[in-house]
This record gives sequence, C-alpha cells and structure tokens, in this order.
Amino acid sequence: MIGLDHPHVFSMAGQVVGAGAELAAFCGDGPAVDLFGKLHPTARRVDERDAILEDPSIHLVLGAGIPCERAPLGIEVMRHGKDFLSDKPAFTELSQLESARAVQAETGQIFSVFFSERFENQATVRASELVGQGAIGRVIQTIGLGPHRLNAASRPDWFFDPKRSGGTLNDLASHQIDQFLHFTGVTRPRIVSARVANYAHPEYPELEDFGEVLMEGEGATGYVRVDWFTPDGLSTWGDGRLTVLGTEGYLEVRKNVDIAVREGGSHLYLVDGAQTRYVDCSEVALPFAGQLLDDVVARSETAMSQEHCFLACELGLRAQSAAERVPAPRGQANP
Amino acid sequence: MIGLDHPHVFSMAGQVVGAGAELAAFCGDGPAVDLFGKLHPTARRVDERDAILEDPSIHLVLGAGIPCERAPLGIEVMRHGKDFLSDKPAFTELSQLESARAVQAETGQIFSVFFSERFENQATVRASELVGQGAIGRVIQTIGLGPHRLNAASRPDWFFDPKRSGGTLNDLASHQIDQFLHFTGVTRPRIVSARVANYAHPEYPELEDFGEVLMEGEGATGYVRVDWFTPDGLSTWGDGRLTVLGTEGYLEVRKNVDIAVREGGSHLYLVDGAQTRYVDCSEVALPFAGQLLDDVVARSETAMSQEHCFLACELGLRAQSAAERVPAPRGQANP
Repeated sequence: MIGLDHPHVFSMAGQVVGAGAELAAFCGDGPAVDLFGKLHPTARRVDERDAILEDPSIHLVLGAGIPCERAPLGIEVMRHGKDFLSDKPAFTELSQLESARAVQAETGQIFSVFFSERFENQATVRASELVGQGAIGRVIQTIGLGPHRLNAASRPDWFFDPKRSGGTLNDLASHQIDQFLHFTGVTRPRIVSARVANYAHPEYPELEDFGEVLMEGEGATGYVRVDWFTPDGLSTWGDGRLTVLGTEGYLEVRKNVDIAVREGGSHLYLVDGAQTRYVDCSEVALPFAGQLLDDVVARSETAMSQEHCFLACELGLRAQSAAERVPAPRGQANP
Repeated sequence: MIGLDHPHVFSMAGQVVGAGAELAAFCGDGPAVDLFGKLHPTARRVDERDAILEDPSIHLVLGAGIPCERAPLGIEVMRHGKDFLSDKPAFTELSQLESARAVQAETGQIFSVFFSERFENQATVRASELVGQGAIGRVIQTIGLGPHRLNAASRPDWFFDPKRSGGTLNDLASHQIDQFLHFTGVTRPRIVSARVANYAHPEYPELEDFGEVLMEGEGATGYVRVDWFTPDGLSTWGDGRLTVLGTEGYLEVRKNVDIAVREGGSHLYLVDGAQTRYVDCSEVALPFAGQLLDDVVARSETAMSQEHCFLACELGLRAQSAAERVPAPRGQANP
C-alpha cells in the first residue's frame, strides 16, 4: 500500500487481505497511518516507496494517496512490473489517463480502480447477478444518486482544491458512471450534459457541493446526481441509490440505508413480470478482491475488464471538464 | 364536462363535485360515458357541446377529450365567459398555447390543468406544505419518475398517434415538470436536454416508450424520467417517485406504491438535520378543487397561478419538440 490519504485504505486493504493476499508493506503519512499499522501488524511500514516498488516479492500495489498523485504512482508501479489497484478517482486529468493507457498497453500490467459502491455492496453485487441472468430484460436506463456528508472540518486541504481532488463529478460520480456502463453494457458512451454548483458553501468557493450528469450510449441512458448535502438526521454518510430499468422489470438498490424502513445497508428491491419483492442480500459474497488476486496470478481479466475501467474513468473526467455551472438564483451571486 | 376520452374524467369530476360543485351536464362519447352517467345521475347528458357552452348557469367546464382537442375547447370555453379545467396534456403544439395565453389575457378567464400527480396525491400535498415551511431549506433539485403500465390493448387509436396524444414527454412528464417548477420556485426554466426512445415496442413504431428531461432554472435543476415499462408484477399502474433535495434536508414521495414495504399509496419520507422519518399523510386534505371553485367565484388565483400553469405546459411542449432519439443498441435498428 502506497499512499494512505483517504480512509478508503481500510476497506481496500481489508478486501484484498480478506481474499487471501498478504499485506507486505505500506508507505505513506496522514491521520490514517497509525490505525492502519495496528490493523495490519505484520506489514512493514517503510519510509520510501522504492522499498515497495523494488521488492520483487510484491505483485500488487494499492494506492489511496491524494487523487492527483494516484495515476503517476500507478504508472510507476506498472513500469516496475507490478499491478495497481487505485482508490477512486484514479485520475484528475485526461493526460494522466492517456499515459496510464499507454503504459498499461506496453507493460500488460493491471491498472484497476476500487469502485467500492459496486464491489463492496452486497445488494449491488446481487443486482448485477440478477441483471446478468436477464431478470429485468434488456437494461435501458440507470439512475444513480450519490449524496455524501461533507464533514468539512475533517477534510484535508486537498479536498477543497479541484486540481488535486479532481472535482466532485470526477470523484463521487465515478461510482455511478461505472455502474451505468456495467449495468447497461454500453461501450460507446458520451456525456450528454453535466452540471456542477456551489449552492450553499460560500466559505469554500472552490467546492462543488452538487453535480449531475446525463449520459447515453447504444440503446441506453444514465442519469447521475451527486452532492455534499447529506443531512445530520441521516444515520449514515449518504443515502446512495441505484435504479436499473429494464424492458421486463426494474430494480432499486438502497445502498447504505433504507430510510425509515429497514436497518443496515445493502437493500435490493425487484419488480418483474411476476412479483414485487425485497431480496435479502445478507449472504451475498463480494467477488471483486478474490477475482483481482486471481487475475494478478493468472494474468486474466475477471474482476473488471481493463477497457471498462479506463472507460469509466474517462467518462468521469469528460463529465467534469464538460460541466457547466448552474445559474445563480435571483438576487444571489454565483461563486 | 366536455370530452370524456380519458379515464381522468372520473377523478377530475370527482374532485370538483367533492369540493361542492354541481355537475350540470356532460357531452362526449367513448367507453367511459355510460359509467360516468351512472356515477353522476343528476347530470344531464347532452349531444351538442353548445348546450354546455351557452348555458349561463355553468361557470366551469372540465375537458378530458383527445389531447389535441383540449386547447381549442378551452379557448372556446373562455370566449364563452367560462373557466376551464383541462386534463393533461392541455396542449399538443406551441401554437395552441400561444392562442390560449392570448385569449386568457383578453378574457380574464381561468385556464387550469389538473396535474393529478400533485393535486390528488396526499403525500405530495404534504411535501409541498413542508417545503413551504422551510423543512428542507432551499430546494436545489427535484427528480421525478413517472413509469406507467402500457396496457396497449386497452388504448384508443389516438394514444399511438403523437400528433393527437402530444407525445410521451409532453403528456406524462407534464406532472414532473409541474412539480419541478412548483417545488423549486423556478420561473425562468429551460430544457437542458430531452430524449425519447422506442426501446421495446416495434409494433407501435410511433410510440415513445421512454422519455427523459433535464431542466434548469435560477439555482435549481430537475430531472425527469417517464416510461411505459411498468411490469405486471407491480400492484398498481406505476411506481411514481418524487425526490426533492434541499440545502437542509431531502424528501421522497412514493406516490402510488411503496414497493415491498407499505400498503397503499401517498407515502412521504423526510430526512432533515434532526431525524429520518416516515410522514403519515392519510389525513391530509386535497385543497386544489376547493381552491379552484373559490377562484371561479372570487376571480382569485389560489389553486395555481395562471403563469405557472402555462409555464409548466410550455416546458412540456419544449421538451417534446427538443427531444432527440436515443441511439439504437448494436445490431438493432432504431425505429
């Protein structure tokens, strides 16, 4: 593990270790490091990342540094003959993506991104299986909502700097974009429209507290809304939702909470030609990390195709760069 | 009542009669007429609409004819010194709207539209009250989903002819557009993007079985998806949803059904700074019809402003005329 700037380090490392990997070493600083060391007592803490990059016994490097530093690290990792799993967003500029694509093609290493809202969510995994089995016919649309709690005081400086964080659409919406491509099977997507706003945080003029994207591809469209407006009265960081509309039925995933209905997260509702039902996902296994480790060993591509991974990242970058500002309400200046 | 081509006649008449109006007469044909006559035994059935238009004891005319005939009727009604309540969509072409606006301004009569998904839904009425009281801060976004069951065999010919029906966005999405304007207070909206498709009904090449609209105005955006894909396994005609995002909280209305959770319709969920809760709306009164009757008598504008009514209709027409077709999936022709 190189770069521990985002708390996603815990789940990323937890997943791959849980799937059978040995966490050999980690390198980074920031508030997560001490706890990370305690959780992984057999891992060496090293001061220089070269100690990891040049260790021939290490095959896979995880990275959750500051977003703008992830792609350059991934490129270095691949050049050292290792595979890379990045926190999202893996890229903050299209030029980084172009370089990563070139180096990946040249080296044949894996450049993967941990889209946790799919890979770590049992209901989304089950939804994926059901859609794959044709449970709702051909998928024609997805709607993804990704609200987040801001917790501004706990955020590091780079969070408020779009150059380093990559912007709200590129960061938060990367999950919903990944899911749009995954559930529709679209391979030639385009951004129809993208918008960002700073509606209520003038103290952070660079923050985009709201973003939305409309996308389309061959025979399907996708809408995404992300925001930093989760109210304090919600029991968790965000009421993430995914609605998948098919020609024969639809499903809804309530990812982290089922407001005023059920306890816990990972809730799946399915309506098809025969019935309306709640699908219990508490026993669903999460295959991503195990598949990734298999891919590392077998040089296969089962966890997520490389093309899909880069395409999802590209669409996030394009949404961000295409985004217009929502006009200000009457009598208010737009920051 | 003139024109009984859509079953909305029952709820429109039911609401105004329930609010104290006397239903004097009706004129029309189609499969609803006999039942309508039984439900309103004191109303005269007349063969010629002039018998209604020229009856000085009649002050308000309701119309649920074929969509393309509603605006011309409304114009005639206003020219006869009466007010008009149309089923939606009230217009199928912008030129009709221009004429109605001119005649309304000239005569001072009311031209109203029965947006049933707001006026007839207790949870939406309660949501409106709560938003008006500032329960979720300033509204920055709405998402409206309006899926419908097609029941193709039960539909009349005009349903499949966009010239007469007005098209799916103009028809179905008119509700969500009304709610976008109502909940955000936007008065200068524009259509950012609109799309339609015929994904799965090649036997009805003119049918748009899917539509979506992205709108914006001063400091708010709105997304709408409507479709004819309600699966048979749903207990009602459509799982209509409304999500209203504010700077201090959000709410969700599950209009007709709360899938696999609660019985019945009109469900409201609210999350604010203090809590997450289900709001019981079973005792909420529906004020629209009573306010409209007051407006007819007092020449006031309490049920819905004339400007809002025309603006919502205009936006539906503009969405429809701006709509692009979603590209066909690989290997399939787009009808």
